[in-house]
Amino acid sequence: MPRYALKIEYDGKPFAGWQRQADQPSVQGAIEAALARLEPREHTIAAAGRTDAGVHATAQVATFDLEKDWDAFRLSEALNFHLKPAPVAILKAAKVADDFHARFSAVERQYLFRLVVRRAPMTHEAGQVWRVRNPLDLHAMREGAAHLVGLHDFTTFRSSICQAKSPVKTIDEITIEERPIPHGQEFRFFLRARSFLHNQVRSIVGTLEKVGSGAWAPDQVKDALEACDRAACGPVCPPQGLYLCCVGYPQDPFTD
Amino acid sequence: MPRYALKIEYDGKPFAGWQRQADQPSVQGAIEAALARLEPREHTIAAAGRTDAGVHATAQVATFDLEKDWDAFRLSEALNFHLKPAPVAILKAAKVADDFHARFSAVERQYLFRLVVRRAPMTHEAGQVWRVRNPLDLHAMREGAAHLVGLHDFTTFRSSICQAKSPVKTIDEITIEERPIPHGQEFRFFLRARSFLHNQVRSIVGTLEKVGSGAWAPDQVKDALEACDRAACGPVCPPQGLYLCCVGYPQDPFTD
Repeated sequence: MPRYALKIEYDGKPFAGWQRQADQPSVQGAIEAALARLEPREHTIAAAGRTDAGVHATAQVATFDLEKDWDAFRLSEALNFHLKPAPVAILKAAKVADDFHARFSAVERQYLFRLVVRRAPMTHEAGQVWRVRNPLDLHAMREGAAHLVGLHDFTTFRSSICQAKSPVKTIDEITIEERPIPHGQEFRFFLRARSFLHNQVRSIVGTLEKVGSGAWAPDQVKDALEACDRAACGPVCPPQGLYLCCVGYPQDPFTD
Repeated sequence: MPRYALKIEYDGKPFAGWQRQADQPSVQGAIEAALARLEPREHTIAAAGRTDAGVHATAQVATFDLEKDWDAFRLSEALNFHLKPAPVAILKAAKVADDFHARFSAVERQYLFRLVVRRAPMTHEAGQVWRVRNPLDLHAMREGAAHLVGLHDFTTFRSSICQAKSPVKTIDEITIEERPIPHGQEFRFFLRARSFLHNQVRSIVGTLEKVGSGAWAPDQVKDALEACDRAACGPVCPPQGLYLCCVGYPQDPFTD
């Protein structure tokens, strides 16, 4: 059976997360249902990152096998047709080698977190950014973030239900950019690592927001990290600003 | 009674348009209902531009009178509180002179139209752009648009139900920018005039899309304009890419 990979964009708002669930809408469930319209049977697809409820993707990757030999472009068009009106779009499909796996072949993940500072509530981007009202100090947040880059025990910054065997991870990059928006500022956090722990990005951004607002000194991030204690973490920020925006493989499966 | 002006952002998707209607949600109705929570009585507010169903604003302006002397900042905060969860945000409030009127004092309107070319459907921006699949030629659209700038009889480009006394208007600017987006292109049309006719922007963009796709030669825009005949217009494009993005006054009422 030929194997396929999809590059997928979705709005996490109406979903209980990536993972298929019995009674709630999921992105995985929506795509598997669309696949069943093409080949009527049960399908199980594997994703590079199982995003939580409300979390978005601009370039999630998933793999699965089909019986028929599909033209990749026609496959993406057929899936987009059957996915309507769910806010899930197949950006690209590709036939891949039998041993290619969206999750296990991945060597890098990139997440974007969008944090907006403004008084007025969001309209067009409601559910797509985390809005706070207090001003944030970019330089303090950058100083705090610098403590987290590199190889560390991230026990402080992972969910208590995280299933990873080890809390030791390497964060290759945390970049924070500020851009003016009408009547406010947007802060964009880019995080890059081979893999992340459960809730790691949201634990980090929630903590850095405390630094930005002045509630924490930048050095307290180092103390929290070194405590290796979940209780030392700042608040986990809400999911709606988080985007899985890139998954890296030794060779990009979507290059034509 | 002191007079106030609001700068308003809204997502037009859930509304039957700006204008208050008996049985359907409207932006005007939502704001008037919020005002009634502050001063319980009937309110009537006037807007710079009465946007159609599905049309958005990033800087609509509206004026009204209140009995009480409100601090402008507290007024905007109170209205935002009462507007929840509608996708309408008061970006700014200001106390203005008694003879200031959102519509009649305005000397300029700017509209943005967002047109996206890509195969995959929209997710995060569903209802916020007009998506087409066919490639578009930027230079041809610019050439076609150039025929429309200046003082003209725009009978071809106005709705048959337009109530303006004269079809003669001056368009001061039509700028079209192309920006790459992942797996597609976005074309942003900026139009600037003292005032516009009903459906004028959507009639123009719908026609220019025909030019971009190659169905019309750029010079056919000139022929259509000179025909002064509604039947000569290209298709009116859908509302969801349209944003009222700036209203100009001799003096900006929102400058502190």
